[in-house]
Amino acid sequence: MQSLQAKAAEWSGVDSADAFAIDESNLFEKLGLQAFVNLSTNFYNRVYDDEQEWFRSIFASSKKEDAIQNQYEFFVQRMGGPNLYSHRRGHPALIARHRPFPVTHEAAERWLHHMQQALDTSSDIDAESKLKMMNFFRHTAFFLVAGDQLKKNQTQAQQPPPCKHGTSNNQEESDSSTH
Amino acid sequence: MQSLQAKAAEWSGVDSADAFAIDESNLFEKLGLQAFVNLSTNFYNRVYDDEQEWFRSIFASSKKEDAIQNQYEFFVQRMGGPNLYSHRRGHPALIARHRPFPVTHEAAERWLHHMQQALDTSSDIDAESKLKMMNFFRHTAFFLVAGDQLKKNQTQAQQPPPCKHGTSNNQEESDSSTH
Repeated sequence: MQSLQAKAAEWSGVDSADAFAIDESNLFEKLGLQAFVNLSTNFYNRVYDDEQEWFRSIFASSKKEDAIQNQYEFFVQRMGGPNLYSHRRGHPALIARHRPFPVTHEAAERWLHHMQQALDTSSDIDAESKLKMMNFFRHTAFFLVAGDQLKKNQTQAQQPPPCKHGTSNNQEESDSSTH
Repeated sequence: MQSLQAKAAEWSGVDSADAFAIDESNLFEKLGLQAFVNLSTNFYNRVYDDEQEWFRSIFASSKKEDAIQNQYEFFVQRMGGPNLYSHRRGHPALIARHRPFPVTHEAAERWLHHMQQALDTSSDIDAESKLKMMNFFRHTAFFLVAGDQLKKNQTQAQQPPPCKHGTSNNQEESDSSTH
């Protein structure tokens, strides 16, 4: 099976070296906390006001201020700053935390559309950092699409057998419960 | 619903401040790469040779040398070193990557038993670092048990309706596919 990383690279068009070029320098030290707060605020203002209801509705169960904090704390942590996110919420566990949401190719592209606009209108982030960040975001968005498909695969794998067998537990579940 | 972090703290007995005390100093700079390689080698030698077959079998689908590399690269990345893991495999996505395995309370305790023994026999890690690492490991192990239960919840939620309806798609899946 193709790895999550390979799928992310193929679908995003960004290879992992470019995606993780954010690690070549310390973007948090370069940009400072406020630039990340501003970026996430800018981004979510666009998302929560999206004219496309199907995308806006994905976020309807979360408060905007929580979404903003979760995002900038993760970005800060991943881009060289203090581990704000983990100290408050634990491991990022990116795929698991996106599990309630339909992370489709279309949703990834819409997310990236808003993030590109947010970056384009950020005056406190230099052009080189914007490019590195966008490569990271693009790769990550499709990493999450790949992660979302694990969910579908598992659901299919764990469908019970046809009705005549009359059970809702399959072998995988049975095995797990004995450990 | 209780958060992943809250469940991890309750079940492990380690609160998040103690778990993430690994961030108070840079353990990678203090200990160096070889200490992490040695620890993971020591740990997996024990795991692959575990007398308890139920636990040993969880790892049977992976090569020991791959398990060692995945683990020490993640530890290095999380404890202040270069992001070796992500450059090779993408985001840690800890919960999703543990999805194929039955991460039960019992499995977490057995994992921690071997890790405690590995730390106890590590001559290149000082006592204070061992304590910080063990708190991190203990909290993380139960964070993954909490993550494993998401899988079960989802499986239950996505069970099809009783047989007489004769469909294997539920509303959540249908909604997702329209996005």
